Amino acid sequence: MGHGRTLEYPKTPINKVNRYNQRATYDLEQIHTIINTSTVVHVSFNTPDPGNPFPVTLPMVGVAASFDHPSASLGEPLDVYLHGYVSSRLMNLSRNAETDTSSPDTPTPAQGLPVTISATKVDGLILTLTPNTHDVNYRSAVLYGYATLVTSVEEKLWAMEMVTNSVVAGRWAHTRVPPDAAEMSSTSILKVRVVGGSGKIRVGGPRDEKKDLDRADIRSKVWTGTIPVWETFGEPVPYEGVSAGDGKANLVSLVPEHVVGFAQQRSMENERYALAAVEDRSQD
Amino acid sequence: MGHGRTLEYPKTPINKVNRYNQRATYDLEQIHTIINTSTVVHVSFNTPDPGNPFPVTLPMVGVAASFDHPSASLGEPLDVYLHGYVSSRLMNLSRNAETDTSSPDTPTPAQGLPVTISATKVDGLILTLTPNTHDVNYRSAVLYGYATLVTSVEEKLWAMEMVTNSVVAGRWAHTRVPPDAAEMSSTSILKVRVVGGSGKIRVGGPRDEKKDLDRADIRSKVWTGTIPVWETFGEPVPYEGVSAGDGKANLVSLVPEHVVGFAQQRSMENERYALAAVEDRSQD
Repeated sequence: MGHGRTLEYPKTPINKVNRYNQRATYDLEQIHTIINTSTVVHVSFNTPDPGNPFPVTLPMVGVAASFDHPSASLGEPLDVYLHGYVSSRLMNLSRNAETDTSSPDTPTPAQGLPVTISATKVDGLILTLTPNTHDVNYRSAVLYGYATLVTSVEEKLWAMEMVTNSVVAGRWAHTRVPPDAAEMSSTSILKVRVVGGSGKIRVGGPRDEKKDLDRADIRSKVWTGTIPVWETFGEPVPYEGVSAGDGKANLVSLVPEHVVGFAQQRSMENERYALAAVEDRSQD
Repeated sequence: MGHGRTLEYPKTPINKVNRYNQRATYDLEQIHTIINTSTVVHVSFNTPDPGNPFPVTLPMVGVAASFDHPSASLGEPLDVYLHGYVSSRLMNLSRNAETDTSSPDTPTPAQGLPVTISATKVDGLILTLTPNTHDVNYRSAVLYGYATLVTSVEEKLWAMEMVTNSVVAGRWAHTRVPPDAAEMSSTSILKVRVVGGSGKIRVGGPRDEKKDLDRADIRSKVWTGTIPVWETFGEPVPYEGVSAGDGKANLVSLVPEHVVGFAQQRSMENERYALAAVEDRSQD
């Protein structure tokens, strides 16, 4: 990144990671990387219905990025852009939140709908001598912020490109763009102004307790080790559907490099991370 | 399953899936299967702090099961058991919720802490002619319920076995069990009495609009198809650490079948699902 400093989200009662502090991270680059390498994130928020005590959680496509500073690295403060649909509950709540009259008994502030964005990647299953010490290698990120609908056409178009490229790197430029007027108006983008965040990362292999490690009878009966886990992006499958009238819909016979290369590289990175996590002794 | 009926979660304002109704499912078996094949689920809940408008979201290991009816299938009503630690916020809130004096301005009911459990599996990236129609094959499940700490020793021991085996099938019986007294008291299990749930499932390949499909110039420039995505469970890596005193900690030289077989089967099932999802025309 070259800037030689590490930005962290401030520790507050809201984002402080209470469990396993040695695994906690507040490092912006680590947290934003987890979000941006997750195809789908979970977005949780409360409905204004006082009879519903449950947060709503929706799977959405999201990307951490900065419209005001487009060249910002993942280690710098970023907003999160989420892709959804005009009719959905979240979009409506975000629209309402912006125009909220803030009666004292509604907790929704006028600056947007409070949302919690989370993503977790499982990197390995840790098999130890006894169930209690079994564990999971994982990377988990949570961001807190206020969601509003993007209304500027320029920012929306930019965000649509960022969201598309967060799913398949560089895809936007290889499609029919720009979106037409109907597509621009039917697409809603939520911008989450991030106010805090945290992450948890577990790496390494089994960590058994001395009471079990001291017993050769247990060690000779129970296998210990790690099953590495990663997301594979398989061989791209060309669309075989037909177009009305003139035959095959997909007229590009070779899978292009931006698709094949992306799938191969993402798979390789994921596998490499999972295997490196097993050998990582930094938390031992 | 053999019982010849399909149980569904009732549609209510809380769980109704507003977006893409054709992808919504309320089928218990589908929803519980997504939860139980996810190593980690997200658990969202609200803190009692009125100054914190953001739901807290934690990654946890969870399993849908029934202690009262242990032979219940995934298509029947189940509770969710979550594994965590005594000191964590969620455990403390659940303990407090049970003894809540229910003043009228605290929304937390005495029956437990309201939690939302979510899990999403990405099955493929759908690449179409234009960004707007890009999509993701996925399976997503949400369950709503009230969380309390399991206090019965018998139920806790049973739940610990279910949770362990939800990560690696059959693992419990191949470890040093039962947990000793210290392990039993240091381990907390949350039981979530599920009151509702829903799921969303997207399968199939690209679905482009007529306006783009009608244009051969676009179809001959833009490749369309699917990158199938699945979670690979790799080759198990034996623990190579040493025990204090007498050498290698791991005295089992061959990776046992319950580990190898599980990893291979889970990988195969995941890959097979992702590839079948591409070909599935049920939503076209």
